[in-house]
Amino acid sequence: MALYVHKYGGTSVGDIDRIKNVAERVHKARDRGEDVVVVVSAMSGETNKLVALAHAIQERPSPREMDVLLSTGEQVTIALLAMALEERGCPAVSYTGWQVRILSDASHTKARIEDIGTAEIRKDLDEGKVVVVAGFQGVTEEGDITTLGRGGSDTTAVALAAVLKADECLIFTDVDGVYTTDPRVEPRARKLDRITFEEMLEMASLGSKVLQIRSVEFAGKYNVPLRVLSSFEEGSGTLISYEEAGVEKALISGIAFNRDEAKLTVQGVPDRPGIASKILGPIAEANIEVDMIVQNVAEDQTTDFTFTVNRGEYKKAFEILENTCNDLGAKKVRGDEKIVKVSIVGVGMRSHAGIASKMFDALAKEGVNIRMISTSEIKISVVVDEKYLELAVRTLHDAFDLEQAH
Amino acid sequence: MALYVHKYGGTSVGDIDRIKNVAERVHKARDRGEDVVVVVSAMSGETNKLVALAHAIQERPSPREMDVLLSTGEQVTIALLAMALEERGCPAVSYTGWQVRILSDASHTKARIEDIGTAEIRKDLDEGKVVVVAGFQGVTEEGDITTLGRGGSDTTAVALAAVLKADECLIFTDVDGVYTTDPRVEPRARKLDRITFEEMLEMASLGSKVLQIRSVEFAGKYNVPLRVLSSFEEGSGTLISYEEAGVEKALISGIAFNRDEAKLTVQGVPDRPGIASKILGPIAEANIEVDMIVQNVAEDQTTDFTFTVNRGEYKKAFEILENTCNDLGAKKVRGDEKIVKVSIVGVGMRSHAGIASKMFDALAKEGVNIRMISTSEIKISVVVDEKYLELAVRTLHDAFDLEQAH
Repeated sequence: MALYVHKYGGTSVGDIDRIKNVAERVHKARDRGEDVVVVVSAMSGETNKLVALAHAIQERPSPREMDVLLSTGEQVTIALLAMALEERGCPAVSYTGWQVRILSDASHTKARIEDIGTAEIRKDLDEGKVVVVAGFQGVTEEGDITTLGRGGSDTTAVALAAVLKADECLIFTDVDGVYTTDPRVEPRARKLDRITFEEMLEMASLGSKVLQIRSVEFAGKYNVPLRVLSSFEEGSGTLISYEEAGVEKALISGIAFNRDEAKLTVQGVPDRPGIASKILGPIAEANIEVDMIVQNVAEDQTTDFTFTVNRGEYKKAFEILENTCNDLGAKKVRGDEKIVKVSIVGVGMRSHAGIASKMFDALAKEGVNIRMISTSEIKISVVVDEKYLELAVRTLHDAFDLEQAH
Repeated sequence: MALYVHKYGGTSVGDIDRIKNVAERVHKARDRGEDVVVVVSAMSGETNKLVALAHAIQERPSPREMDVLLSTGEQVTIALLAMALEERGCPAVSYTGWQVRILSDASHTKARIEDIGTAEIRKDLDEGKVVVVAGFQGVTEEGDITTLGRGGSDTTAVALAAVLKADECLIFTDVDGVYTTDPRVEPRARKLDRITFEEMLEMASLGSKVLQIRSVEFAGKYNVPLRVLSSFEEGSGTLISYEEAGVEKALISGIAFNRDEAKLTVQGVPDRPGIASKILGPIAEANIEVDMIVQNVAEDQTTDFTFTVNRGEYKKAFEILENTCNDLGAKKVRGDEKIVKVSIVGVGMRSHAGIASKMFDALAKEGVNIRMISTSEIKISVVVDEKYLELAVRTLHDAFDLEQAH
């Protein structure tokens, strides 16, 4: 019998009616003869409410107790969904993280799954029950409750699909799939039927926030086919899997972008070994995440070192850099908060030359000035002035003919 | 080191400020050198909110899933209280029912505790931590979550005090102790410093709803001294324990009453063996609880059979009785919804004659007509017309001189 893991996020189970809708969808799948394991998040708003309670007591709540607190959110949803299924005459049973025995390490609020028990779930499925599992939570060897951090419910779903060898892991969200780019920027953006794990990773990390990157990594690692689809509409969504041999792939799958970037440059850095770590060390110590890094070849024994950070951390990063700049004898620090990153992503570009130049040409023709470039095997990112974001995305969408399925 | 189990109900942990107050009180006890285990209920209103969610889905929610749902209420409180303690610099650790391993049977929504693990708690106490335990919940041998039914948190506290051999189990409530009678009826009611388990059982079951009867039974069985006291004011409350030899006891400890009664009489029942069970059988089958039962000696081969039920079940009981009446060839069914029960309670009456006649005399002098009488070793209950309730209570309070400590 085909086995599917369904995952429904907070919005999809946001109130009683939506929980009933989820029950209906799951029940239909069961009636089609599918075995179904459902992973659910807390009802939308509940987690924030619990976080607010904790912060009313402690500025930095104890991580262990935070996990005890937050894990109640999903526990409420599993009980309600199991009731909604039983009300429809669909046998169901709910399990918390510790009941399934989703064993994790002890890194409270950001734990990693280490092992999952399957015997109980298999038994329930064999008895014809739908198994409803609380996402986002686990338990340590010692019996402490843990949570898996942002997007943890996706991770739970993928991990369950992996250990149960499910045919697919269906991630139900409020969008109907993965698009070639954000339809709010390019109305002609097209829903993709398929995309590879590698492409999805680049798309996700670059700002197309459909799936949590960790769950995509996980799915890729264990080769679990992921399908993103709408919990409100019918449709087959987008399948995320490995590239199939023999399938003609489009050069480019999509255009990702990130509005939330800021750029910092240390000018006139003495060109000595180890200079990059001297500059980035204090930034990392301040827990500021660095995205793109570019260092040009040296001229006159000095070089310019440029990187991008999240816009919210620009000021802090700037101050840290000014200190580092003095220590290193560099000339000065410059920065720009009004930049964005635009990337083309596609496994097809690996075997095709000329993609980069086609990209740069297209942007140049529209007068979009490129401020930084960074590339990987399956993506090319450029930093441009913020005002060019929409123009750049539409230009590239058109240049690579993404409106058409290939 | 002295060990105390504290229990705080829903009102005492009803909001963040109250949780902080509880933390302060517990912290002070810890600073006095006491070992403290704290049992808490769900924040007031939370359980009702969860019940409403369940009923919005299922008219009769699955008991197993109901327990998964309801147990989240206490889980929220334990995390918040542990945080509030840590915020004060008082080391603390929270445990759910399954984490302590409060093992129960599988009677969902009304489970009975079978065993409690203590090793972990002892270890934490030895390390100087306050242990915060979720009341009301347990776990079956198979790992299913259970709840203990009404007043379950009191039961958890008493059970923990028993297995940990605590010096006392302190039940913090919104009243400052057990009174000789309800101060709203008799303003001169006096707080008792001590009362015996047996008296408390009679007082509780007769309508002085300070403590859940099950937890008092449990405390008596395992000889756990219980202390009822206010979570909002200072004070030593009322200690509930076994009668101490050599302590001069008052004849009467208190006056209990129950407004919520109704009386039913089957007249002219043929006086045959087994008639009582023929009358009460169908009542029991309909899940109607019977309180007082009185059967007078037979006259002319027939007898009158009278009993009281909860007023809310009067109509249902009446209908059932009319059928039974026909089957048995009894004369007719009569009933009265406007009656109340007033009882005097005291272990002292065991060794003193004349208590009953003193009671009846006092009532007679005020013109209070007694409709039914029932006695046990440590209480005498009378049924009177509803309109006499306050007069009867005040008359008896005065007659037995309860205003004065003895």
